[in-house]
Amino acid sequence: MESIQVALAENAYEISIAPGNLDRLGAKCRDLKLGNKVMVVSNPTVFALYGQRTISALQQADFEVSYCELPDGERYKTLDSIAHIYDLALEHGLERSSTLVALGGGVIGDMTGFAAATWLRGIAVVQVPTTLLAMVDSSIGGKTGVNHPHGKNLIGAFHQPRLVLTDPDVLVTLPAREFRAGMAEAIKYAIIGDPELFDLLERADGLQQNQIDPELLATILTRSARAKAEVVSKDEHELTGLRATLNYGHTIGHAIENVTEYTINHGEAVALGMSAAGQIAVKLQLWTQQEAQRQDRVIHKADLAIELPPAIDLEQIVKTLKSDKKVKAGKGVFILPSKIGSTRTIAYEVLNPTEDLVSDALIKQVLTAMLPIASS
Amino acid sequence: MESIQVALAENAYEISIAPGNLDRLGAKCRDLKLGNKVMVVSNPTVFALYGQRTISALQQADFEVSYCELPDGERYKTLDSIAHIYDLALEHGLERSSTLVALGGGVIGDMTGFAAATWLRGIAVVQVPTTLLAMVDSSIGGKTGVNHPHGKNLIGAFHQPRLVLTDPDVLVTLPAREFRAGMAEAIKYAIIGDPELFDLLERADGLQQNQIDPELLATILTRSARAKAEVVSKDEHELTGLRATLNYGHTIGHAIENVTEYTINHGEAVALGMSAAGQIAVKLQLWTQQEAQRQDRVIHKADLAIELPPAIDLEQIVKTLKSDKKVKAGKGVFILPSKIGSTRTIAYEVLNPTEDLVSDALIKQVLTAMLPIASS
Repeated sequence: MESIQVALAENAYEISIAPGNLDRLGAKCRDLKLGNKVMVVSNPTVFALYGQRTISALQQADFEVSYCELPDGERYKTLDSIAHIYDLALEHGLERSSTLVALGGGVIGDMTGFAAATWLRGIAVVQVPTTLLAMVDSSIGGKTGVNHPHGKNLIGAFHQPRLVLTDPDVLVTLPAREFRAGMAEAIKYAIIGDPELFDLLERADGLQQNQIDPELLATILTRSARAKAEVVSKDEHELTGLRATLNYGHTIGHAIENVTEYTINHGEAVALGMSAAGQIAVKLQLWTQQEAQRQDRVIHKADLAIELPPAIDLEQIVKTLKSDKKVKAGKGVFILPSKIGSTRTIAYEVLNPTEDLVSDALIKQVLTAMLPIASS
Repeated sequence: MESIQVALAENAYEISIAPGNLDRLGAKCRDLKLGNKVMVVSNPTVFALYGQRTISALQQADFEVSYCELPDGERYKTLDSIAHIYDLALEHGLERSSTLVALGGGVIGDMTGFAAATWLRGIAVVQVPTTLLAMVDSSIGGKTGVNHPHGKNLIGAFHQPRLVLTDPDVLVTLPAREFRAGMAEAIKYAIIGDPELFDLLERADGLQQNQIDPELLATILTRSARAKAEVVSKDEHELTGLRATLNYGHTIGHAIENVTEYTINHGEAVALGMSAAGQIAVKLQLWTQQEAQRQDRVIHKADLAIELPPAIDLEQIVKTLKSDKKVKAGKGVFILPSKIGSTRTIAYEVLNPTEDLVSDALIKQVLTAMLPIASS
């Protein structure tokens, strides 16, 4: 059993990682002296698998448990879903001492966290991530929110959970594609700050869901959570730029998600974004081609693509990158590797100083090289 | 010019009170190094009176200013209005460095604060209160939010403003009824902690809008803001119970607002609630009848009623009081005066120990005495 502390001045909390942890949820919440009423928020898919165990664990610790079901999928990550949580919070009499438990992936975690941040000006939330992506990333750090019809995650709040409870056993039911997506973030942690983790990933016999050694998986969960916890504890509200290092692979990744209308999921896009960022770093002579290729081999080993879909519109990707508000304000940055385990933050201006075309050309050159051979 | 500091570890800010202050808004925001984009949120009534001056003041300090209009009235204090603020925030490209300026009374202040708390996980908000109630109370302290269809202020967040800028000159256009409502909160501060302020109110020639001495008004604004600032700085998130002392007059007051379907406004209800709480304190031998009567005379002098409307349903008031979640959980409290300037916090259990009827009887006895003679 691993216990990682997110060290924050006011809102410190534990990330607990252990097989079978789900059954310890009630006891853990009791230890935290959480109030008596708990509402579990989940979606039908996850609830069918783990809902009853979650509720039983809470009831066995004498909590009064209610349930709020939200539809499954990113397109329901809206204020309307939050309003539904509020309605049930009222119906079940949730008070300032009550707790919401987010049982699910990133979408459920973000929405439950936001509802907790804003119900009665803030109640407790416990994150119980059920996807690899949520376990290594989104459940930790207190970013909560929903999408605006015209932009992702524009509406939200920082609201730290009281506990993150991870049970790796639940990953057996995760679709393989979602497993891969989570692995992309784990690879990210390795590249930006954990060369030992990178070695483990590189030496592993396999990184896919049906191949991975459970011990390596446990190590990935622990080291990723620790890396995230460390950054969050130094930059809780994303003020110093330190937390921006977590965006490695995300700048181009977000643009790819956007341009493909999210048919490429977040993790897949981050994998492509890391591969592209790696090549940009190589072109700028920040990173060796050899290490960039080692990165790409690990990405490939996780069954993640390092090739763009043939029909993708590169102009549109560059346009999306340039429409970013930070970029427009001259504050855009790329996180680029300088070696495995270290990054540098390179201002977009550096890539894009006075001659706009040069930088677009660089990005496009790198992306073009990532197209399948027939279509490049 | 008065400058009061709200001393908070992380979010300290100034309450600036001065005639003509509205014209200094831009310079003050510039001093705070706020980002370039500012969106003013107001309603048609207030904007017609003070919108242009507000925008000019900001533009003169080189801010890029946009405007979001919300309909006037408590019934629009909804998530839908917040969604409208988000839409305009997106349209005008508000970034994490941008600022919302709340120009209006409590409803505008609460909604603008909540939108600022949740746009891009939190941007700056500046409160420019235009009602006496907002100046002495709601603009200070960071309570933000909207109503749920079935309950007031159930949805919200703590989000401290970067500046509260008060210009007493704008009160000349305030409807007399709203002026009285604000005066009720000022009287509250005097009773709970400021006997000198009480003396000033008691000795004043008049407390109504068309009578009040501008110097006394300035003193009321300053001392009320200081009292609120002090409590908030010791109990930012309403955790220790200290902030609960600000609820003097509000327990019964809220029930009266609720039962009269808000035809009696907040300040009027608080005045009635203070008068009732005073009599409860007298019956419990915590307070002298003489001081309770001095309180009532000051309330009356502000042209606020100390008599309940004849048709009011007292059973319903008691029922509403008892339906309060805190009361149900055995954690309800009454703030009761022990002398002018001091209160005691009396648990509802004390009023309502084992015999339910005794306490209901006490509250009803006090409220019955407040009915007009013909209907009691």
